[in-house]
Amino acid sequence: MMVLTGLWAFLLWACVLGHPKQTTSGGEDMRNCSVTPPYLPVTAVNTTARLKDLRQQMEVHSLDAYIIPDTDAHMSEYIAKHDERRWWMSGFSGSAGNAVVTKVKAALWTDSRYWIQAERQMDCNWELHKQVGTSPIATWILAEVPAGGQIGFDPFLFSIDTWKSFERLLQGTNRNLVPITDNLVDEVWGTERPSLPSQPIYYLQEEFIGSTWQDKVKGIRNQMQKHAKAPTAVLLSALDETAWLFNLRSNDIPYNPFFYSYTLLTNSSIRLFVNASRLSNNVRQYLSSDCTSLMCVQIEDYGQIRDRVQEYVRGDVRVWLGTEYTTYGLYGVIPKEKLVEDSYSPVMVAKSVKNEKEQEMLRAAHVRDAVAVIRYLVWLEKNVPQGTVNEFSGAEKVDNFRREEEFSAGPSFETISASGLNAALAHYSPTKEIHRNLSRDEMYLLDSGGQYWDGTTDITRTVHWGIPSSFQKEAYTRVLMGNIDLSRLVFPSSTSGRVVEAFARRALWETGLNYGHGTGHGVGNFLSVHEWPVGFQSNNIAMTKGMFTSIEPGYYQDGEFGIRLEDVALVVEAQTKYGGSYVTFEVVSLVPYSRNLIDTTLMLPEQLEYLNQYYQTIQKKIGPELQRRKMEEEYEWLLKNTEPLAYNSTWVHLPASLTILVAAALASALGQSL
Amino acid sequence: MMVLTGLWAFLLWACVLGHPKQTTSGGEDMRNCSVTPPYLPVTAVNTTARLKDLRQQMEVHSLDAYIIPDTDAHMSEYIAKHDERRWWMSGFSGSAGNAVVTKVKAALWTDSRYWIQAERQMDCNWELHKQVGTSPIATWILAEVPAGGQIGFDPFLFSIDTWKSFERLLQGTNRNLVPITDNLVDEVWGTERPSLPSQPIYYLQEEFIGSTWQDKVKGIRNQMQKHAKAPTAVLLSALDETAWLFNLRSNDIPYNPFFYSYTLLTNSSIRLFVNASRLSNNVRQYLSSDCTSLMCVQIEDYGQIRDRVQEYVRGDVRVWLGTEYTTYGLYGVIPKEKLVEDSYSPVMVAKSVKNEKEQEMLRAAHVRDAVAVIRYLVWLEKNVPQGTVNEFSGAEKVDNFRREEEFSAGPSFETISASGLNAALAHYSPTKEIHRNLSRDEMYLLDSGGQYWDGTTDITRTVHWGIPSSFQKEAYTRVLMGNIDLSRLVFPSSTSGRVVEAFARRALWETGLNYGHGTGHGVGNFLSVHEWPVGFQSNNIAMTKGMFTSIEPGYYQDGEFGIRLEDVALVVEAQTKYGGSYVTFEVVSLVPYSRNLIDTTLMLPEQLEYLNQYYQTIQKKIGPELQRRKMEEEYEWLLKNTEPLAYNSTWVHLPASLTILVAAALASALGQSL
Repeated sequence: MMVLTGLWAFLLWACVLGHPKQTTSGGEDMRNCSVTPPYLPVTAVNTTARLKDLRQQMEVHSLDAYIIPDTDAHMSEYIAKHDERRWWMSGFSGSAGNAVVTKVKAALWTDSRYWIQAERQMDCNWELHKQVGTSPIATWILAEVPAGGQIGFDPFLFSIDTWKSFERLLQGTNRNLVPITDNLVDEVWGTERPSLPSQPIYYLQEEFIGSTWQDKVKGIRNQMQKHAKAPTAVLLSALDETAWLFNLRSNDIPYNPFFYSYTLLTNSSIRLFVNASRLSNNVRQYLSSDCTSLMCVQIEDYGQIRDRVQEYVRGDVRVWLGTEYTTYGLYGVIPKEKLVEDSYSPVMVAKSVKNEKEQEMLRAAHVRDAVAVIRYLVWLEKNVPQGTVNEFSGAEKVDNFRREEEFSAGPSFETISASGLNAALAHYSPTKEIHRNLSRDEMYLLDSGGQYWDGTTDITRTVHWGIPSSFQKEAYTRVLMGNIDLSRLVFPSSTSGRVVEAFARRALWETGLNYGHGTGHGVGNFLSVHEWPVGFQSNNIAMTKGMFTSIEPGYYQDGEFGIRLEDVALVVEAQTKYGGSYVTFEVVSLVPYSRNLIDTTLMLPEQLEYLNQYYQTIQKKIGPELQRRKMEEEYEWLLKNTEPLAYNSTWVHLPASLTILVAAALASALGQSL
Repeated sequence: MMVLTGLWAFLLWACVLGHPKQTTSGGEDMRNCSVTPPYLPVTAVNTTARLKDLRQQMEVHSLDAYIIPDTDAHMSEYIAKHDERRWWMSGFSGSAGNAVVTKVKAALWTDSRYWIQAERQMDCNWELHKQVGTSPIATWILAEVPAGGQIGFDPFLFSIDTWKSFERLLQGTNRNLVPITDNLVDEVWGTERPSLPSQPIYYLQEEFIGSTWQDKVKGIRNQMQKHAKAPTAVLLSALDETAWLFNLRSNDIPYNPFFYSYTLLTNSSIRLFVNASRLSNNVRQYLSSDCTSLMCVQIEDYGQIRDRVQEYVRGDVRVWLGTEYTTYGLYGVIPKEKLVEDSYSPVMVAKSVKNEKEQEMLRAAHVRDAVAVIRYLVWLEKNVPQGTVNEFSGAEKVDNFRREEEFSAGPSFETISASGLNAALAHYSPTKEIHRNLSRDEMYLLDSGGQYWDGTTDITRTVHWGIPSSFQKEAYTRVLMGNIDLSRLVFPSSTSGRVVEAFARRALWETGLNYGHGTGHGVGNFLSVHEWPVGFQSNNIAMTKGMFTSIEPGYYQDGEFGIRLEDVALVVEAQTKYGGSYVTFEVVSLVPYSRNLIDTTLMLPEQLEYLNQYYQTIQKKIGPELQRRKMEEEYEWLLKNTEPLAYNSTWVHLPASLTILVAAALASALGQSL
């Protein structure tokens, strides 16, 4: 699944697509605040009472404005109901969007994906601002809050960067940013607020772990010792950091097997901050939580993290943390001279390089995942022509095929099942109520993935069961060429992904086409489907062997169709003619592309050679698996869809020895015909 | 000429080349401080007395250490003798290297290009550290200076970033960075120190300017007005900013027609800080320096800048500046809330986009420059086989050919004229004393450029007059393929150069080859040959039409040879099949490559097509110029060297209509021969 984060990505998207019209059947019933009385659709939420309550809270704290972000205290991409404050306050349920409430106004900022949804869900208490980033919010605050005004925020919902950004934007304007540790929305939300998740936390069986938590702790402590600034502790805030370190999982966040937690790993102790009642005796024993040696995990209460960090930093210590996933709430209690800052914690970086066993597990998960996707593609081929499949039932079908696979733990994100023009909308997902039928005459985009105990998967295929237009074929082929050109690239180890991602765009750029999202993201072992810090954006870390990333160019024709071809690939050593430390990609997603959408005349022979080799790999790895399971129909489909593609091209590639022969033949032929 | 700045560039260089051995005939006479008495070559400078004097000055200011950087108060790439403090103090004259003196030690940090030179020039008072960047210096300071120690520095020789970096590295270590406004080296240097340059400052004739200084001032003020933070002034520190803004030039810095200056451009005044005695009445009149309206330039003394800025910021003002070229000396006097910071000032950014006339001037300068380079290549072909040319006499020859061109104002940087293994050394230049002979049996690299009143040029060609090895041909061809692939790339306007520069490396990477420097840099109109902020590095700004950049991949085989192919190119609009805002490059350097070094079997037909088209352009643009000047020999050479290259390749490219014909012909030929 594509990542649409960062202003850069957003601007590009806006620039390429203009303002995509959101098109859903029956979704046009929007508020109209310019009539009297205002018209509100049934989907709108009445926020008058809760806004009044919030303003009372603001009064108590002498605030002129209060900022309500869309994240949680761990900078999670997906958040639990418990943390849906912006949704509850505004009525708007989209995954991205920040709100600000002043004494007299309430405003929401979100991107073009969500404008119509916001108009359907918000009442007339709310202004909609069609912008993103901190800058437009700060500009609005400056216009609405008089000089001397106080702007409140929850320091646990502000990343360090967000805080710095607002600080800079409001600098010298005589408006003050005031951290308020008790969240004011929570005060108002009261007992209605969903409680913190409390399912048991469990540990992974040995066959599903890359190394023991003790080895991981040793590795991190080793890094602390070698570090020039001699940190005495590492503070972990991102939920997948703690989950990875201890090989623990639970189910607090949709699609992510995480649990609310922090870790303070020092050179002499290991402190896990979590709701202790969620740990069975078994888990406590697994964590050796009753002893006091260097290798025991002390359990502390989740809510105590700020106080405990504050206590810890009174000593002669240095705390190593990653600024991208730490909130100002914790950062702010650590004296500057006791901080050792990197963009990502050493756990985040260690997690990004998979060891041999983790690589094998991820490869195995992708083999099973390919079976599920192929079953679905075969099923679609039979059922779509009968007109019985829609986007939602399709999504359910593929989710079910995945659930039937061994070690399945459900989808790794909400399945994007988009027909025709819906596929041109970023992150579109159908609902039971609103969806399109799949049709022979339209393209269909499926972006989906699974959580398995051994790995997380993510793959996108785009298909057409009828006769695609030549433009659709050209766009599809150029997306495929981009995918191939990046996948087969040989580049120096430790190159930043940002430096090479344009190879996935060149074939599109050539004709004036492009896509407005990132080109790929890291993937975890039964962890995040968007696993940072691996990827192709400027804030990702350099690519080295053992990392997994998606490669996912696309093309979106507003109001008509969308194409994306996404595979997960492992960074592996490359053997070059003259040696050196070079890497390339080994694609581990193993599902064929759509033959009727490939125009081979556009492709270079070397691209076709690569593609045919990939198809051989699919045959070799997925064929036996389908046979083993007696899936004859799928096996036949696989063979048909991985037949080598011929050089139907104006480039003729010949073995060197034949070149002269051809020249002669051509000369002779020309002589005959002219 | 390649830019080798930034730790990234350096690390890559080090990684690719290992530690290049500096090889010069007779250059191995180095100091030996481990014998008693120490052995010192005649080239070593006795620094005992000046170090003693400096330590006395340090004592006066209670300093435990004093940092001596290698730049001037304008962050210039080249500096005047007046500013060669590190050279004078240490004896080491290389262009890059920082020094620190403590009460008992003196140390120099420089990169591998200069290690041997440093061992020849420094006496045994000095330690040589083979590292770069602020971090190793800070680490050394921490070891040498006890807790509580004071580390002095001249705030006018520290960029904001350098200052921040040292601050961060010394944070919490109980060592204090102390800015000392009077430079201590200058105090010691005394009357021996070369005085500030004082040649007249002149203005450019109308035919050589893109727009008047009044229009430029209007443009910048316009930007100030539109800016969200409403800056009241722009502060210019880089020397080419002031030179560009007023269309003024002089000769203070080698190769750069600049003069020591600052500009404080406010919404109501224009203040030029310069040595007033250098301005004739004519120039004063040109600057309307006697009136008091919005469009008069007030002349103030160069030395007053700090005080005047300090006065100015007492008011209700905001100063807009570029952090990359402003020193801590000025930054430090502006209260934080009165700062509007960008990486580059609006003048720097405006200067980077050349208008139609500036583009035409730069194109015209490159036509004349191509004539000079072609004359030199023809001359080499005749003279090298006779063994009468060496690196130094060659450099003099090409410099003279350039001087004979209209509007010439000398070379734009020290000519890199490097034969055989010397070409593998970064920024190698021959001297009258130390150089190699040019030989039929070695490759020869020429990287040179000219200053002309209408433009600045920079071009690199690599040649071989005998029989190159197949590895030399492969490396040369892959460098050329990289140059071509980047030059013909079509990409969205406003793309960062960093995102596309890998296209210049791909053909090398494929076989495990690479180069350790940047891929290109901006170029000015009779300004810097390395004109920031245009280029392909992470701190360059996005590429838009009207910018000029060099494109210069290379390959360096340590101890054997070096290859670099550099052209200057203009960013122009690209017409694509499906429209959109796309750009590509128009190469304005017009000198053919070396035919005997191109292995066409490695190249794609589309690369050869591009190359042949480029050769046609050279014929069309340079041919008539050579004929006009009756340079018959050069004209013949040009025709011979721009003949189309044939597809001597295993790829056969045919018009679509012929494909079937070929297939048939091939089938028939195969039928006949099998």
